[in-house]
Amino acid sequence: MEIKIAVDAMGGDNAPGEIVRGCALALPEFPVSLTLVGKTDVINAELGRNKLDLSRVTVAEAPEVIGFDESPTAALRQKKGSSLAVGLGLLKDGAAGAFVSAGSTGALLAGATLSVGRIKGVERPVLATLLPCGNPTGVGCGYVLLIDCGANVDCKPSYLAQFAQMGSLYAENMLGVKSPRVGLVNVGTEREKGSALVKEAYALLESSGLNFTGNAEASDIPRGKIDVAVCDGFTGNVILKFAEGFSKAMMSEIKGTLMSSVPGKLGGLLAGSSFKKIKKKFDPAEVGGAPFLGLNALVVKAHGGSDANAIRNAIRQCCLFIEKDLTKKMENNINHGGSAPKPPQGASAP
Amino acid sequence: MEIKIAVDAMGGDNAPGEIVRGCALALPEFPVSLTLVGKTDVINAELGRNKLDLSRVTVAEAPEVIGFDESPTAALRQKKGSSLAVGLGLLKDGAAGAFVSAGSTGALLAGATLSVGRIKGVERPVLATLLPCGNPTGVGCGYVLLIDCGANVDCKPSYLAQFAQMGSLYAENMLGVKSPRVGLVNVGTEREKGSALVKEAYALLESSGLNFTGNAEASDIPRGKIDVAVCDGFTGNVILKFAEGFSKAMMSEIKGTLMSSVPGKLGGLLAGSSFKKIKKKFDPAEVGGAPFLGLNALVVKAHGGSDANAIRNAIRQCCLFIEKDLTKKMENNINHGGSAPKPPQGASAP
Repeated sequence: MEIKIAVDAMGGDNAPGEIVRGCALALPEFPVSLTLVGKTDVINAELGRNKLDLSRVTVAEAPEVIGFDESPTAALRQKKGSSLAVGLGLLKDGAAGAFVSAGSTGALLAGATLSVGRIKGVERPVLATLLPCGNPTGVGCGYVLLIDCGANVDCKPSYLAQFAQMGSLYAENMLGVKSPRVGLVNVGTEREKGSALVKEAYALLESSGLNFTGNAEASDIPRGKIDVAVCDGFTGNVILKFAEGFSKAMMSEIKGTLMSSVPGKLGGLLAGSSFKKIKKKFDPAEVGGAPFLGLNALVVKAHGGSDANAIRNAIRQCCLFIEKDLTKKMENNINHGGSAPKPPQGASAP
Repeated sequence: MEIKIAVDAMGGDNAPGEIVRGCALALPEFPVSLTLVGKTDVINAELGRNKLDLSRVTVAEAPEVIGFDESPTAALRQKKGSSLAVGLGLLKDGAAGAFVSAGSTGALLAGATLSVGRIKGVERPVLATLLPCGNPTGVGCGYVLLIDCGANVDCKPSYLAQFAQMGSLYAENMLGVKSPRVGLVNVGTEREKGSALVKEAYALLESSGLNFTGNAEASDIPRGKIDVAVCDGFTGNVILKFAEGFSKAMMSEIKGTLMSSVPGKLGGLLAGSSFKKIKKKFDPAEVGGAPFLGLNALVVKAHGGSDANAIRNAIRQCCLFIEKDLTKKMENNINHGGSAPKPPQGASAP
C-alpha cells in the first residue's frame, strides 16, 4: 500500500529548500507518494536541485503562505490559496492520508479542526510531542509523550482525561510501550496537591481504565518515570519551550567552558562525536513533528526550524500512524462524554 | 551590626549534619549570629563535630519535626513544638531577623503567613527562586528570578502583577540588576497569546511602571532574555522541577555517552573540571534557597536536598536581604489594591 502524504512546502523557517530535501530523504525509505503543496515554480526549482523519484511526487499549486505572525482565523479566511489551506483541503478530500506542515501552529490547528473535523466525542484536538528522557529502569522507550504541548491553553478536567486516553493509545501504538504509564503533571506527587484543574482531572484519570500512575512532578519527565505526561497546553508548551532553550543554553555553556582551558579544548576535541550524539538527543526539534490527535485525519506539526531530517522523521511518523490505523483506534476508544468507561476496543464497524 | 538568623536544624533530607556544617561555613564569612532550632542534644552533638564560633551560636529547643508528607495545616496545629513552628516564633518575636528552613514548603508557607503575616497590601506571599541562564548580551546577571515557583497554584491576574513588583525589587537589590527586565511567561510573545489569566495580567503589567518587556516564551528564561520571569506557582514549579530533572538527566547522559568510547573517556578525563563547573551552574539546588516575598520578615526555603554549601548560601542571602532593608522597600513599593501606580520609594517613616 502506498501511503499518500501532503507536505506543506512553504511553511517554516527553512522552506522550501529543507522541506523538499526532507522529502528526497523520505522517498527511498518509506512506501509513500508525496504531494508538495506551494508555489509550483518554486517547488519545481527545488525538485530540480534534488534527486527524487518524480513518479511518486506531485505538486499542488498554492500561491499564498500564512506567516507565523498572522492571526490564524483571519489568515485562514483571507488566504484560501495558502499552502496550509490547500494541503488541508487535500486531506479533507481524501487525496492525502496525512498532512505535514512546519507553518503556523495556530493556523494549522484552527484550519485542521475546521476542515477535517474532530473525532466524534473528542472535546478538543490536542498537540502531542516527544521529549527525550533517561530510561534508568529500562521500562520506557527513551521518550515521554507530552500532551497537550500547546493546543489548548485553558482546559477543563475532562479535556485532560481525553488527552490521557489519546496519549496512551499513541504511546502504545507508535512507541511500542505496553500499558503506558500515564502521569498527571503536578506540583507534587501527593493526591491532594495541585490546582483546581488537576485535582478534578486526577479523579477522572483514576477511573479511566488507563495505567494511571498518579501525579508526576515535572522532574519525572526527563527522568523517564512515566511514558505519557498529561497537562494543559499552557503548561505543556512551557515545558517544551523551556526544554528547547535549556538544552541549547547548556550545550553552549559546555562549549564555552571547554574552550576556556587547554585540557578542556583537547577533551572537547576527543569527545566531539559523543557531544554531537547528546546534542541530537536533547534537542526537541530533532523528533521531527508533533501530531494533532483527536482529528479525523492525521496532521503533523513539524517544528518551525525543521531541517530535512526533521521533515523525513515527520513523514516516517505519518507512515507508522496510518499503518497502525490510529485514527480508527482513537475513534473506537475515545470516551463519548469525557468520563464514562471506554467501550471495548474494535467495537465499531470497520 | 550583627544579623540574627534562625536556622531550622531539623528540616530537609540532610538534617542536621549538613545544616550545622553550613552554619559552620557561614559564621567566619558573614556578620551573623545564628540560632539553631531543633532537638538540643542532637544539635549539640553536631556542634561538637564542627568548629564553630560558639559565642555567636545559640540553640532553641524544638522536640518535634514536621515531615514532608504531613498536611501543612494539620502539622502546624498539632506540632507546636516543631522546629519550624519554634523558628517562626523567633522570627515573629523579633528574636531573629530571618528564618532558613529546608523543611516542608507548604508548612513553611502556611506557618509563615500565619505567624509573621503579609505585608499590608500584598494579596499573596510568593516563592521566588533563581534559575541559571546564559547571558549573551551581557545585560543580565547570569540568573533569572522565577516568581512564583510554587506558593500559589491558582492565581488571579492581580497576584501576578504583585509578583512582578516584588520580583523586580528583589532583582534590583539582591542581584544588582538596574531596571530589571520583567517578562510574563506565556506560550508566545504576541500580546494576544495565552490563557485568560496571562491575558489579564498583561494589561496590569503594562501599566505597572515596571520595565515590562512583554510576554516571554519559556525558552527565553535559559537564554537570559529577561531578569524576572513572572508566572503562577503551578507553571513556575513545573519549570523549576523540570530544570532540576533535565539538567541531571543531561549530565548523566553526557557521562554515559563519554564512558562508552575510548576517546570519550579520555576527553571526559581531560575536561573533568570544566564539567564540574557546568554541573554546579545548572543545578538549581546550588542557588541555596528561595525566599518567600511579601511577608513582614524574611523566610528562606532551602532546597530539601540542601548540603552545607546551600545552607551557607541561604544565610548569605539573608544577610544581603536585611542589609538592603528589602522588606521595608517592599512595604513602600507594593501596590495597595493590585493595579494602582506605586508610591514614591522611601515615602513611609523609618
